[in-house]
Amino acid sequence: SNSQDIDHILETQCALAVDLGGTNLRVAIVCMRGSIVKKYIQANPKTFESRIKLILKMCTEAMQDAVRLNCRILGVGISSGGRVNPQEGVILHSTKLIREWSAVDLRTPISDALHLPVWVDNDGNCAALAEKKFGHGKGVESFATVITGTGIGGGIIHNNELIHGNTFCAAELGHIMVSLEGPECSCGSQGCIEAYASGMALQREAKKLNDEEMLKIEGMKVVEPITAVHLISAAKMGNLKAQAVLNKASTALGVGIINILHTMNPSLIILSGVLASYYQAPVQRIILERALSSAQNIQVLKSDLEEPALMGAASMVLDYTTRRIY
Amino acid sequence: SNSQDIDHILETQCALAVDLGGTNLRVAIVCMRGSIVKKYIQANPKTFESRIKLILKMCTEAMQDAVRLNCRILGVGISSGGRVNPQEGVILHSTKLIREWSAVDLRTPISDALHLPVWVDNDGNCAALAEKKFGHGKGVESFATVITGTGIGGGIIHNNELIHGNTFCAAELGHIMVSLEGPECSCGSQGCIEAYASGMALQREAKKLNDEEMLKIEGMKVVEPITAVHLISAAKMGNLKAQAVLNKASTALGVGIINILHTMNPSLIILSGVLASYYQAPVQRIILERALSSAQNIQVLKSDLEEPALMGAASMVLDYTTRRIY
Ligand SMILES: [Ca+2]
Ligand SMILES: [Ca+2]
Ligand SMILES: [Zn+2]
Ligand SMILES: [Zn+2]
Repeated sequence: SNSQDIDHILETQCALAVDLGGTNLRVAIVCMRGSIVKKYIQANPKTFESRIKLILKMCTEAMQDAVRLNCRILGVGISSGGRVNPQEGVILHSTKLIREWSAVDLRTPISDALHLPVWVDNDGNCAALAEKKFGHGKGVESFATVITGTGIGGGIIHNNELIHGNTFCAAELGHIMVSLEGPECSCGSQGCIEAYASGMALQREAKKLNDEEMLKIEGMKVVEPITAVHLISAAKMGNLKAQAVLNKASTALGVGIINILHTMNPSLIILSGVLASYYQAPVQRIILERALSSAQNIQVLKSDLEEPALMGAASMVLDYTTRRIY
Repeated sequence: SNSQDIDHILETQCALAVDLGGTNLRVAIVCMRGSIVKKYIQANPKTFESRIKLILKMCTEAMQDAVRLNCRILGVGISSGGRVNPQEGVILHSTKLIREWSAVDLRTPISDALHLPVWVDNDGNCAALAEKKFGHGKGVESFATVITGTGIGGGIIHNNELIHGNTFCAAELGHIMVSLEGPECSCGSQGCIEAYASGMALQREAKKLNDEEMLKIEGMKVVEPITAVHLISAAKMGNLKAQAVLNKASTALGVGIINILHTMNPSLIILSGVLASYYQAPVQRIILERALSSAQNIQVLKSDLEEPALMGAASMVLDYTTRRIY
């Protein structure tokens, strides 16, 4: 019993974090301090059955590794694209990026199989939780995080808590509209910031320029497939058309973020995702140009977390189990 | 002493409510149930000195009437245009509509003169408090109110509390932008919903049409000055140009409100102000056309309060004094 106590003291308290994205299914063992002990990546299966099977297989493998690594798994935290009811642990509805992923109770099968408590939330919300626990949001009462990746997602912390909304679709920040007409969005509307400023939107514009033979400029190498990266490098090398597209994208994103400021007036905006470092400066400039003077007193920071969705998924476990709330 | 007790029981607990608008200064004795016992209206003076003087004079008069009317005044609640720090009872900054009204400590002089506790908040926030206590917001945890009058204001209740924001400029809903270009706004930006859909904006468009002799149609009487009302009646009588202006205004307001839904996802939107009954149906339609399907499950109601700003000013007194928090 004495030796058991010592074993117990030597164990690291950890979470099993799961990130369900459009392309990949990732699982990680994350310790209390936020470092990733071990990570597993597989392609996210296209059907419900095989996806659930793979989640359980990857988690079971991770649990076995955890024993060897002297990690004590306190619970499972899951980040998923789409709209999530975190109280019930249910995916209500997902985008086309994750097929067969609506009205899915994730908590019950995973909790039953692994005998662990399970938390589930939207990936943007998880990113906000990650900033709150491990990133720039530490100690900040109210902030919003905007994730500019393939699409645009987000999460909002107010009074130190996530805002989930009446039907769990708060912080659908990609679908803030900044134009009455404007480009068509995957949501069915038009003028959404996702349709102007996401990786998909920039890729669409880059391809359009490339088809018109307006993308490449002298000295520029383009390796297919054409992506947002080519647009950004063409602009940097002086391509005026590429610059105009990126200016419009930055303005749209900046105006969308100002709409968050004029609604919630948080003290901090955190940008994450692959395009964050590109957008940080222009967004800050557009806030100075177009926000109410009293709302301009706001920081726009670039996230320094490498895996916000996984970290946020882990934080649900680490925060709740240590507070002993389930 | 026995007769004093009876007097005390017969007294009605009341608030002194003050509403500082661009045009008028209004004071009212409001009883616990929300009915106005007596109301006083004067033009809002143009200078700081005479405004403070008049507030004190009107409040003193109302206090004397209150004694006669057997009303026990518990405190003073003040609604003002502009940005307000309610913790300090200070007007931080006001629009051009109320001159000499920045960095004004209202609590200290009024509390000193009347020997009563004083609460101050922004008019849009007061309107939200009024809905919460006396209107459609009763028992609703999260809702937003949008006031379409001369300008556009608003207030947001989340978890049964107002959102004031980090620099007290949350719910500046008139300056949600729905266009990257679009009409110029009094705030210095462009494309704000106030610049499309407020009484001022509609009046500007009505005057423009009238100058081009495109406003009046056969059988329509126009009594100067031209206002939003003429635009609405011209549209009803079949004026296509007037209809187009109003369609654009409704779309802008509807898209602006959807941006609130995609940020906060409240369960209710309450429209108030003179244009509320006009906008209710088109805003509901635009939500069905352009909001995420999961955010469409929202009611858009027209306020049935006659004096939301005064009622909200009163509610600060009535709620706080009965909770004995100051
Ligand atoms: Ca979200
Ligand atoms: Ca307000
Ligand atoms: Zn959209
Ligand atoms: Zn504006």
